[in-house]
Amino acid sequence: MRRALTLAARGLGSTSPNPVVGCVVLDRAGRTVGEGWHQRAGGPHAEVHALAEAGDDARGGTAVVTLEPCDHTGRTGPCSRALVDAGVSRVVYAVADPGPEAAGGARTLAAAGVDVEGGLLADEAAAGNMAWLTSVLRGRPYVTWKYAATLDGRTAAADRSSRWITSAEARADVHRLRAESDAVLVGSGTARADDPHLAVRGIPGAVQPLRVVVDSEAAAVKAGARVLDSVGPTLVAVARDADAAALEAALRGAEGDAALLRLPRATEGPGLDLGALLAALHARGVRSVLLEGGATLAGAFIAAGLVDRVVGYLAPVLLGAGPPALGEAGISTIAQALRLTVSETVRLGPDLRITAVGGAASGTSHAAGPAATAATAVTSATAGAKKPSEQPEES
Amino acid sequence: MRRALTLAARGLGSTSPNPVVGCVVLDRAGRTVGEGWHQRAGGPHAEVHALAEAGDDARGGTAVVTLEPCDHTGRTGPCSRALVDAGVSRVVYAVADPGPEAAGGARTLAAAGVDVEGGLLADEAAAGNMAWLTSVLRGRPYVTWKYAATLDGRTAAADRSSRWITSAEARADVHRLRAESDAVLVGSGTARADDPHLAVRGIPGAVQPLRVVVDSEAAAVKAGARVLDSVGPTLVAVARDADAAALEAALRGAEGDAALLRLPRATEGPGLDLGALLAALHARGVRSVLLEGGATLAGAFIAAGLVDRVVGYLAPVLLGAGPPALGEAGISTIAQALRLTVSETVRLGPDLRITAVGGAASGTSHAAGPAATAATAVTSATAGAKKPSEQPEES
Repeated sequence: MRRALTLAARGLGSTSPNPVVGCVVLDRAGRTVGEGWHQRAGGPHAEVHALAEAGDDARGGTAVVTLEPCDHTGRTGPCSRALVDAGVSRVVYAVADPGPEAAGGARTLAAAGVDVEGGLLADEAAAGNMAWLTSVLRGRPYVTWKYAATLDGRTAAADRSSRWITSAEARADVHRLRAESDAVLVGSGTARADDPHLAVRGIPGAVQPLRVVVDSEAAAVKAGARVLDSVGPTLVAVARDADAAALEAALRGAEGDAALLRLPRATEGPGLDLGALLAALHARGVRSVLLEGGATLAGAFIAAGLVDRVVGYLAPVLLGAGPPALGEAGISTIAQALRLTVSETVRLGPDLRITAVGGAASGTSHAAGPAATAATAVTSATAGAKKPSEQPEES
Repeated sequence: MRRALTLAARGLGSTSPNPVVGCVVLDRAGRTVGEGWHQRAGGPHAEVHALAEAGDDARGGTAVVTLEPCDHTGRTGPCSRALVDAGVSRVVYAVADPGPEAAGGARTLAAAGVDVEGGLLADEAAAGNMAWLTSVLRGRPYVTWKYAATLDGRTAAADRSSRWITSAEARADVHRLRAESDAVLVGSGTARADDPHLAVRGIPGAVQPLRVVVDSEAAAVKAGARVLDSVGPTLVAVARDADAAALEAALRGAEGDAALLRLPRATEGPGLDLGALLAALHARGVRSVLLEGGATLAGAFIAAGLVDRVVGYLAPVLLGAGPPALGEAGISTIAQALRLTVSETVRLGPDLRITAVGGAASGTSHAAGPAATAATAVTSATAGAKKPSEQPEES
């Protein structure tokens, strides 16, 4: 299963709206005779790749798959049927398919006399498929807020200079995050101040994410903006009532695939309805969003309970002044603080990457089966928050 | 030597103005026959403890010591002489003594026919004695700035509530830091807002640090303040020209040992001359200072180049508003940013403790011998800072 999880991870960033899946086929004697992973939506599933490689050696053997084999005819036939046809006698999978369409593969296999076992390394497999599982459970993309800051939480110096706070290693890692995401999102302040490119660089074969600029007033993205080049597709989200004539002209003149998205304004506070934004992205097949900046937009996402994961690149640098990493998030007192759970800490050159989960409000953690792991991981942090009354006096 | 280093660490916080030292004595056959560590200033040195335990078994044996044995008659006799008298035939030490008074033990031992070797695990030993080595090399105490903040660098919510951002585990660890320090220091803002106690709690046998409040205008420490209780000694630093009549009355009425220290004001900016403050503390035998708050005082120390180490307790919490961990530090543009080196990252319950060194300006890194390790560790970060011109374009 570990090998299958490694294979699955190769698909990160290129399979949406499908999950990443890896499969290893063993022969009767337990030797690996086929390997495969789902490479892109519309292409063959992991099981099909692995069975093709295994050929007749699959007969009487075992298929180890990271996700319950699908039972659904979409752009490809059901994998449950392919496994039965190949004569596989045993299927071991990690995570059950929580989706309404493709689930049921395990039942079909068992009905055909195949020995089926689920749940092996389910937590690890769920973590690898977190974006897809969350999107199935919540009906919106999985949102990661990424920021880079000093130890004292600044993203730039007092004069707004910020090149470079984090190291080349940390900045390269951001490109990996982008490559694993279906969409990269920034607000109008960042678009105006930095003219960011938002494309993946330095990762051969990476699928470029959809570049999304939240530009409520249609005033930040100008003709010639770097996001309008031909490297990847771009979407500019504006308010329904915004005067977007100039922006529309800029999009028509863009080198690349650039479109306008009109959305309702937020019912509370400034900006757009972020739930509507995520719904529109989900409808376009986006299962994971990387929120890159700036502090205002991140604050709005957090206030709306729409951040699932936080990835902070912390440089061992002190500034003592300058813009903060996170802006107003609707939190005025400590009891309202957003409490997360650190899931990983990694050194990247001189810097630290801290990953924390638990940001999103969730009412879906009661979904049954291993797939609930995604939601569970996301909600456990809140349960762990301590009440002030449980704490001793201090300082 | 590892055992000797472990023994040495037991003295942290109770040996100042002396270093921590551990010693293991082996007999001719290499068996451990004596162990000792320096427990408190004025008490026997590590070697004396270990030799006493070894008795006659030390004859022809080896002494393993974390610091070059002293050659100096102070409150106790020279250890070099004690080792020769005990008949030890070999001495292995980690770090050479950089001090003007006690150095020379290795030469004396060699002259008496003892086989002497220095430098074993010198880096680890220097790290264990960092405060003392720095104080010898710089003529001022080693300064650690400790802060507790959210991932976005806030120390409290917008309404100033902050109980609790970090966990009980992190708060307990702060008491360990205090116990290892000779003095704990806060500014007037913290004294006024929090009435902190600044004592060590929950660590049996800990020596209480000197509690120091920087109260330039003699207006923050009131009669009945918690720092004036009898748990430990307290020093209140005020400006030479401050009207301290009420404060002096409060100190006279204190339950504990509380004194006033008058200092010149800073030549630039508000507050006191921090170099003069550290010199006064050094003169009182303080070799390590834990700077606990607040953001303004920490900024002033950093602006003055007087922070050697930063210990940040980061809680996986987001606030989006509230006071920042670090105040104005005289840094207005990114090129002036204080660049440190992360030396350790530790999980404490849900939180992270990040230790970084390299903060202090240093002109003493050219001191010869293994003892230079202290200064080297402190200055290497600056050398590692990258020039903007070496960096590729980004975002």
